[in-house]
Amino acid sequence: MPQLIIGRNPLLEALKAGRPLEKVLVEEGARGNNKVAEIVGLAEGRGIDVEYVSRQALERNAPAQVHQGVLAFAVTLREFNLQDVEELPKEKNEPAFYVVLDGIEDPHNLGAILRTAEATGVHAVITRSRRAVGLTAATVKAAAGAAEYVPLVTVVNIAQVLEVLKKKGAWIVGIDMAGAEPYTEIDYTLPTAIVIGAEGTGISPLVKRKCDFLASIPMRGKITSLNASVAAGVVLYEEVKQRMRHEE
Amino acid sequence: MPQLIIGRNPLLEALKAGRPLEKVLVEEGARGNNKVAEIVGLAEGRGIDVEYVSRQALERNAPAQVHQGVLAFAVTLREFNLQDVEELPKEKNEPAFYVVLDGIEDPHNLGAILRTAEATGVHAVITRSRRAVGLTAATVKAAAGAAEYVPLVTVVNIAQVLEVLKKKGAWIVGIDMAGAEPYTEIDYTLPTAIVIGAEGTGISPLVKRKCDFLASIPMRGKITSLNASVAAGVVLYEEVKQRMRHEE
Repeated sequence: MPQLIIGRNPLLEALKAGRPLEKVLVEEGARGNNKVAEIVGLAEGRGIDVEYVSRQALERNAPAQVHQGVLAFAVTLREFNLQDVEELPKEKNEPAFYVVLDGIEDPHNLGAILRTAEATGVHAVITRSRRAVGLTAATVKAAAGAAEYVPLVTVVNIAQVLEVLKKKGAWIVGIDMAGAEPYTEIDYTLPTAIVIGAEGTGISPLVKRKCDFLASIPMRGKITSLNASVAAGVVLYEEVKQRMRHEE
Repeated sequence: MPQLIIGRNPLLEALKAGRPLEKVLVEEGARGNNKVAEIVGLAEGRGIDVEYVSRQALERNAPAQVHQGVLAFAVTLREFNLQDVEELPKEKNEPAFYVVLDGIEDPHNLGAILRTAEATGVHAVITRSRRAVGLTAATVKAAAGAAEYVPLVTVVNIAQVLEVLKKKGAWIVGIDMAGAEPYTEIDYTLPTAIVIGAEGTGISPLVKRKCDFLASIPMRGKITSLNASVAAGVVLYEEVKQRMRHEE
């Protein structure tokens, strides 16, 4: 049973915080209210289904609660930790293949990255807890089912985690538009962690210093960077190509 | 001077239609109104700046107009046509390199595709006018500057345009998860048009029949497709790699 969010202010706060919601129910008679209109606008803007129902239908979901004419179903997903990160490549008997996100803020990007990670056989996606998006409604929607399969691990300190991964034998490859190595020149058949920086600012200086390689993707036009999820996709599929060739 | 959208209903319609807006101005005193609250919710949900101003400041932008406390600045961009599509590769003295979108509906995807197209030197992006997103505010934002550089051509009939491109010597490569050719086996050094299908449904049957090749991207997990902009990025960078090698 999904978690319920009941009442105007709790729902408004959940929407503003970007919590993952499956659906918003609005009582027909509450349509005219100002706060309810804002809730509907925010939900629609985030692609969350809004359904208008009778008071009775609403109260079937929230008996004896002060609902003020609105109610939402929240999404819940399994959580993973760093211990899982080490175990997952062993279970599959493959060289480790991680994606590390240093500050992705757009839920569409996180969702698309989770989707590509699942499709390319990435063992875990590691993201930071602060100034980054998590598994919000928009993320789960953009992940198109992948959020349920790819282990997403949230950590406080990315630089520290990279040190741990290095000690376990992984090569740290930062994707940086000013990177010295063309991304196609890296050997991805070895245990690898691909680091993707924030939209706008890229990989933070401290995390950059932890990278063994800074790899660049050629930019042949006037703009200087790709969408973060596209950049991740380009590099992850180069890795897939190399590993498939290696397995032959 | 950007175009102005003045009044509650025109602005609500523009927001619902996804028109590209630079900014929404709201008169402080109109905050309490129901329709204004919905406008603010929709604008915020789409990442459009909302600024609260005095009545005087608002009226400086729309003198002697019935504004009802709201006003927005719309974005305007240059338009291209099929004639341009043929000329652009000639101007650059390169084999043609097009992207054809058969029903992309998500503005984040269209924006990210325009960005990748610009970065990979695509000569033109061709999209259809119906059941597809255009240059909305969210598209322009996601394109991160690329919308001003990549020629985007909107056509009524994609299948017909593919016939025209074929006659001009281009090979039509449809990206299809069930495609017979691995995407890495296609020769992209020849004049090429890459066809990307709609988000849930892929390339439509009629358009699929016009493709010379149906190319697939390997999916190694449980989900069956990539985000459309990621799929485009993976194939466009395979093309870049082949062309860079060819130029050497």
